[in-house]
Amino acid sequence: MAGMDEFALIRMLTSAAGRPGEERAAETARGDGVRVGIGDDAAVVGVRPGMELVLTCDTMVEGVHFKAETMKPEDVGYKALASNVSDMAAMGAMPRYALVSISVPMQVSEGWLTLVYRGIYECADEYGVAIVGGDTTSSLSGFVISITLIGEAEAGRALLRSSAEQGDLVFVTGELGGSAAGLHWLLQHGIDASRIGESAALTAEVEELIHCHQRPVPEVELGRLLLKSGARIALNDVSDGLASEAWELAEASGVSLVLYEDKLPAAKALLHYAAEVGRNPLDWILYGGEDYRLVGTISRDRAEELSQLFAANGRALYVIGEVASGLPGVRLLSKNGGSTDIDKRGYNHFK
Amino acid sequence: MAGMDEFALIRMLTSAAGRPGEERAAETARGDGVRVGIGDDAAVVGVRPGMELVLTCDTMVEGVHFKAETMKPEDVGYKALASNVSDMAAMGAMPRYALVSISVPMQVSEGWLTLVYRGIYECADEYGVAIVGGDTTSSLSGFVISITLIGEAEAGRALLRSSAEQGDLVFVTGELGGSAAGLHWLLQHGIDASRIGESAALTAEVEELIHCHQRPVPEVELGRLLLKSGARIALNDVSDGLASEAWELAEASGVSLVLYEDKLPAAKALLHYAAEVGRNPLDWILYGGEDYRLVGTISRDRAEELSQLFAANGRALYVIGEVASGLPGVRLLSKNGGSTDIDKRGYNHFK
Repeated sequence: MAGMDEFALIRMLTSAAGRPGEERAAETARGDGVRVGIGDDAAVVGVRPGMELVLTCDTMVEGVHFKAETMKPEDVGYKALASNVSDMAAMGAMPRYALVSISVPMQVSEGWLTLVYRGIYECADEYGVAIVGGDTTSSLSGFVISITLIGEAEAGRALLRSSAEQGDLVFVTGELGGSAAGLHWLLQHGIDASRIGESAALTAEVEELIHCHQRPVPEVELGRLLLKSGARIALNDVSDGLASEAWELAEASGVSLVLYEDKLPAAKALLHYAAEVGRNPLDWILYGGEDYRLVGTISRDRAEELSQLFAANGRALYVIGEVASGLPGVRLLSKNGGSTDIDKRGYNHFK
Repeated sequence: MAGMDEFALIRMLTSAAGRPGEERAAETARGDGVRVGIGDDAAVVGVRPGMELVLTCDTMVEGVHFKAETMKPEDVGYKALASNVSDMAAMGAMPRYALVSISVPMQVSEGWLTLVYRGIYECADEYGVAIVGGDTTSSLSGFVISITLIGEAEAGRALLRSSAEQGDLVFVTGELGGSAAGLHWLLQHGIDASRIGESAALTAEVEELIHCHQRPVPEVELGRLLLKSGARIALNDVSDGLASEAWELAEASGVSLVLYEDKLPAAKALLHYAAEVGRNPLDWILYGGEDYRLVGTISRDRAEELSQLFAANGRALYVIGEVASGLPGVRLLSKNGGSTDIDKRGYNHFK
């Protein structure tokens, strides 16, 4: 890819990403509020009155966060943006504008890059994000993609990690551990075996786990519901694993969290696969990251109301624990009444 | 650096960057408008009324944009932010918030990283930028730093590349080619020889060229002067070389640019060094990038006024050419009356 003019490359990629003939539109007018898109020294965008900016940034490195055996190029692009969108969800914010910086090894083909951008745009379209800029450089080894996402939240109302108080309930918005289990399968069997009809090992349940890993679903709508409820909510997204995220809530709020082992939601697919390969599903549930569910705390007197609000939107609020006093920490109460201190370690893809 | 908690690392770096005891301040309250800084899922910042956002992103890759022989770690950090600040200058915008994403090889020491952050903060302090977030990942090979900078400009008034019209004058805000000449010296002699007193080859002039390469000076104040003048101005910054930037203005505006060879400003240090090593200084002036001067066009009837405005601020507006009609392109009129088409190729660090 060396020597190609940067804007020409981005134009090619944005137009090739399923947008023949819409090149200018893709550059300059995707989404409300974009006055100047890709092609000048910087993009120029608007902010709605009464809103604050919410800013986040996530980087994925080949060999560290993904490998050719675990992610197709479309998935790399999709997930690179989705992980940022999930940070917006965790603030109760609306994603709006993104800048995409890629570092590209010589051996990468235009075709492969085009698929990465197709994935990025697929996610951008789903969540109403306009790609307004970025940078393209060479890489001496693997592919690196770094996305900055700019969103908006009503001034003073973004949901922080520091709002938890003793007596609150701890909740998550969905099942956990699926992504790590999907990755486990992919590392055993390789991505080619994940194509339907090509592997006897591929069941609908395994497919579900692989999908969790490759195509996570950030919870922007639920984040918005939580912000709009006006309740005092501490919020985080499960990017590094429940244990690590619970620790972050505990530390930011100066409280300790108690989680009930028997309340942690896990998909049947996860439980079956864990049994099949002789693994403790709890490892994936607590330490498997990239589930991109929301985890948070809510005062007891608002929990029922929020639960009904979730139900009205076809979703469930899973209460998984409570907030206690004491030094920041996380404890797990097991089914048999035992209690274990949960350490803070997060997710490591390939260890 | 593997295994270190990301926020702990960033806290260490931001506090170690010359800010003992000011850790919280560095995280959350640097600069006006920062409501939530490093440490949550995303930062939350304000935007002043009547302003639009200006967004840009630049990535520096070890071995592609710098080497240990050409840049000290402080310079890497400083320049990574400075190149973004220069994009703001090229829009007439004020830089405000930055997110810093780094990918770090195993062999990098905490000390080295701390120096990179010291350089970032040095530049941030100089230009009033608050570092509000970022991401830290491992790298399997070289160090990669990607910075996104968010600035503000008065709504509808950012200076674009597309405003040039036939008859306008072309200007630059300072001398060109110094950065490439400094890089040339560094590649011949190595960074250790650049330390004062350690090399007979090091003269004040060479020092000046090295400084151009390692510590560029983005022209935010001049960009603001130009925007506030209210004149119709097309603007760009010289990151990839004058030839390439002039082409971008020509293409964005649908005009051709004629540059006068004998008007191109070059430092004496550059001319002397070029003569010493038997190089044509014009190569560095036209194709040497990273000078981070501004290049633009201005209508003839406003040029004198702007020139006086620059002079009142202790600076010079160098008129280097004019805007002609015809297909987009760039021509150089030489001293002897000859005319050469200038091709679009940009800056390549190590070729």
